[in-house]
Amino acid sequence: MTHSSGLRTGLGTDVHRLVAGRPMHLAGLHWPEEEVGPEGHSDGDVVLHAICDALFSASGLGDLGSNFGTSEPRWSGAPGDDLLAEALRRVRGAGWEVVNVACQFVGNRPRFSTRRAEAEQGLRERHGLDVSLTATTTDGLGLTGRGEGLAAFATALLVRSP
Amino acid sequence: MTHSSGLRTGLGTDVHRLVAGRPMHLAGLHWPEEEVGPEGHSDGDVVLHAICDALFSASGLGDLGSNFGTSEPRWSGAPGDDLLAEALRRVRGAGWEVVNVACQFVGNRPRFSTRRAEAEQGLRERHGLDVSLTATTTDGLGLTGRGEGLAAFATALLVRSP
Amino acid sequence: MTHSSGLRTGLGTDVHRLVAGRPMHLAGLHWPEEEVGPEGHSDGDVVLHAICDALFSASGLGDLGSNFGTSEPRWSGAPGDDLLAEALRRVRGAGWEVVNVACQFVGNRPRFSTRRAEAEQGLRERHGLDVSLTATTTDGLGLTGRGEGLAAFATALLVRSP
Repeated sequence: MTHSSGLRTGLGTDVHRLVAGRPMHLAGLHWPEEEVGPEGHSDGDVVLHAICDALFSASGLGDLGSNFGTSEPRWSGAPGDDLLAEALRRVRGAGWEVVNVACQFVGNRPRFSTRRAEAEQGLRERHGLDVSLTATTTDGLGLTGRGEGLAAFATALLVRSP
Repeated sequence: MTHSSGLRTGLGTDVHRLVAGRPMHLAGLHWPEEEVGPEGHSDGDVVLHAICDALFSASGLGDLGSNFGTSEPRWSGAPGDDLLAEALRRVRGAGWEVVNVACQFVGNRPRFSTRRAEAEQGLRERHGLDVSLTATTTDGLGLTGRGEGLAAFATALLVRSP
Repeated sequence: MTHSSGLRTGLGTDVHRLVAGRPMHLAGLHWPEEEVGPEGHSDGDVVLHAICDALFSASGLGDLGSNFGTSEPRWSGAPGDDLLAEALRRVRGAGWEVVNVACQFVGNRPRFSTRRAEAEQGLRERHGLDVSLTATTTDGLGLTGRGEGLAAFATALLVRSP
């Protein structure tokens, strides 16, 4: 029952815990100078995971967990870029065009602004995605302010393919 | 001063504290196996409350508090489904059509994925709403990760009725 | 590579720490009866900062930090209203019209509902912005519930100027 405008909005958030000695992956980039990184079996890329969830949310195709569940060996530990490629394949395959996606990273480190343009360009080139990336901190408060974890908020706008 | 596109976006978030011995209501469903539930006089359905707030936000009609304030006995303790029905009555009555709404539940329990389809279908049937529901956790961090409460983030897209 | 619809969605969040003896600025208003206010060199207006970030996010022009960085004396300590005026100048100058923006304030105090209409009208008159403002609390949980800080979530919908 898609509206006659063909449009649909969606959102996604993601949080990962930081631990010492793990590589930092964020927005499809590796940040080799970081001394902590997301825990777990995936690469913990909160920006790409939030974008995937926003795409699923807007398309009504479920969420990250139902699409790439821990019970599916194929996706266990998959890089965020692979999840995003597959999410886009499923969303576009279901008849949706992505109008745009926007994602805000929330965390003290890495210093996102130094590589924002590189991250946006990478996602555009690898995924054909109109994407904007932003970043903020929380004044030392909450789970990101205390450095316990990283968070991201994303929104997506889709339109029914012609 | 609605834009000539007739479109408007809005968002809503909601948080409720969990306590032992309260029934769990979420996304318009009762989850009888849960041992904790939202505190307070309402049913504490964070998904439906966030959706109501996103609808009010997009339409410019105020928010959950100004529409269903604690001073109004009629809405004190009302089920989330009644609040959503009334929110839609007010939003549609003010000349808006809902293009779609999307809501992400954030919490460790209940296991939302097991009943996502049932929850979405219920909202569609009872409210004529193009809605997508998703869920995530926060790696044990923050108020939802520690199990202190549940949260939900919602977005809504409206268009001026013809 | 703007989509042929000309539309773009974006989002922004902001958090500021509260300390005793600072003036409270929120949504472009001064709240003289408050005994705590946002720390830091800016006025800490989370509502206006989140709206600025949502506008930058949707337009792809960077974020609050990259546009009004602490290294730029001109914007150091600038009132939120000045930041919003400049953000709109840049976004409109880049060829975007604002369809609407919506922002939800999250915090225990000030009592936002008492001045919502005044805040919305002020932003409309000073900035020509179709804006809706809402507010909620978090049941005493998290950084806003404990009164450590204030938060805001905003979304913006833009369209390519004709």
